Amino acid sequence: MNSLSENHAMTDQRARAIRFRQLHHDSAILVLPNAWDAASARIFEAVGFPAVATTSGGVANSLGYPDGQHIPREEMLFMVRRIARTVHIPVTADIESGFGATVEAVVETVRAVIEAGAVGINLEDSVRSEEKHLLPIPDQVERIRALRALGEEMGVPLVINARTDAYLVPMEPDARFEVAVERANAYLAAGADCAFPILVTDADTIRRLVEAIPGPINVLALPGVPAVSDLERLGVKRVSMGAGPCRATMGLTRRIAEELRERGTYRAFLEGAMPSGEANGLFLQRGS
Amino acid sequence: MNSLSENHAMTDQRARAIRFRQLHHDSAILVLPNAWDAASARIFEAVGFPAVATTSGGVANSLGYPDGQHIPREEMLFMVRRIARTVHIPVTADIESGFGATVEAVVETVRAVIEAGAVGINLEDSVRSEEKHLLPIPDQVERIRALRALGEEMGVPLVINARTDAYLVPMEPDARFEVAVERANAYLAAGADCAFPILVTDADTIRRLVEAIPGPINVLALPGVPAVSDLERLGVKRVSMGAGPCRATMGLTRRIAEELRERGTYRAFLEGAMPSGEANGLFLQRGS
Repeated sequence: MNSLSENHAMTDQRARAIRFRQLHHDSAILVLPNAWDAASARIFEAVGFPAVATTSGGVANSLGYPDGQHIPREEMLFMVRRIARTVHIPVTADIESGFGATVEAVVETVRAVIEAGAVGINLEDSVRSEEKHLLPIPDQVERIRALRALGEEMGVPLVINARTDAYLVPMEPDARFEVAVERANAYLAAGADCAFPILVTDADTIRRLVEAIPGPINVLALPGVPAVSDLERLGVKRVSMGAGPCRATMGLTRRIAEELRERGTYRAFLEGAMPSGEANGLFLQRGS
Repeated sequence: MNSLSENHAMTDQRARAIRFRQLHHDSAILVLPNAWDAASARIFEAVGFPAVATTSGGVANSLGYPDGQHIPREEMLFMVRRIARTVHIPVTADIESGFGATVEAVVETVRAVIEAGAVGINLEDSVRSEEKHLLPIPDQVERIRALRALGEEMGVPLVINARTDAYLVPMEPDARFEVAVERANAYLAAGADCAFPILVTDADTIRRLVEAIPGPINVLALPGVPAVSDLERLGVKRVSMGAGPCRATMGLTRRIAEELRERGTYRAFLEGAMPSGEANGLFLQRGS
């Protein structure tokens, strides 16, 4: 790539970042499906979604690892790059807690994620030692500030979705709401674009979080989570799917395998399959 | 990896190759599902299949390319490596026409495929110029002989599934059967372990091919193909699935996307999904 086309690619990426950020401030909720490979990302784009996220769990499983930063950073980056080169819509990458224990290491991960073509990230505020625990707020705030500065330095206004694991780590249940709000607000004040209190499912808690957090919030679609239109009425600005769609395809793959192994028939994979010409047609003039 | 563990890994790979070849000569038909990533391969293994193949179309689509050697060879090899490191069963790689126009280039591809951990290959006898056409028989025979020698040189008795595209390329329909038989027999005589006349679906033609070809044949499970037990009775030794299972998951992904986009609900991905703990559990102690 020569420097002119490099500049051009960077201008495109900057425009995608700006467009992606704006999607968090429209009146309509941003519905953000999570891809685990280039095919799923391209299908989400073809169906009309304006942006796509990755799922750390789905990407890890696709390449043979359990979720939780067991995948080598370079292989995670490889899949982000394949996805970002295959779709034209903005891509945001789930980088778990940043593939590094220091601010510098997390910054280097995100630099590589931007170079891979992504315009946004999900960053978690918990790490695993013996069990998952929350990082001190100042540590996570320092990371968010450093990543905001990195985006400015690189000319790509990175969209930071700051996940708080207040509802995930071991904690007195009654304390979760206040911890989530305190953290979400600290992260937004440090420059995050969206706060993501993961594992919240009931409408009442979601409504209270929206009231207590003066910025966009992201809800993960789990069993029991209100439908998109209800989330929009509650004031949620972004809803994502996590590894759900990937694990649905893994469930189908198992049903296909079981039918084939137990009955020697092909129904589960011949019915409802995308035709070959259509599948390959999704990738013409893509992926270069 | 030190030389002792290298030797150990090569011994394991040699044993897998021998076991995989034997599966073509048992009384039971070899049912061989095709994986497009490490997750699908691991699911096929967990359900009990004794070996797994890759699908060129599925691997290409997963990484953002149409089928037909548009994927860079290194990216195809990356996915073969991820699959071979994730499962313990033998892996055979679909390498289309070998990612090269010369015998030497095809040999180099297969050397890298074996180094990636595979113990078998599918090799096609047609190439695309303006339209698909069959390579001259002596050219394909030369490749098969060179690959047989390569396997011996590397100490891995490579299992060669020699695909003939007699039913795929433009040709007088009445000529297809004789062309398929002539080619299958030439490839088996040159050292192939199995002949694969792709796109044959009816029982009568399959029976006649089995009678005319004195070695194992592979049938691709397409709509209209007899069930596994019927193929076994017809004398077929191996049945594979091609990109079918992958395209079934792409069809499900599209249904998930359409439901989410049109109705804002999550049913298609919440129902029938593999639970998170089970999905990640598939990859514990794998993939290193």
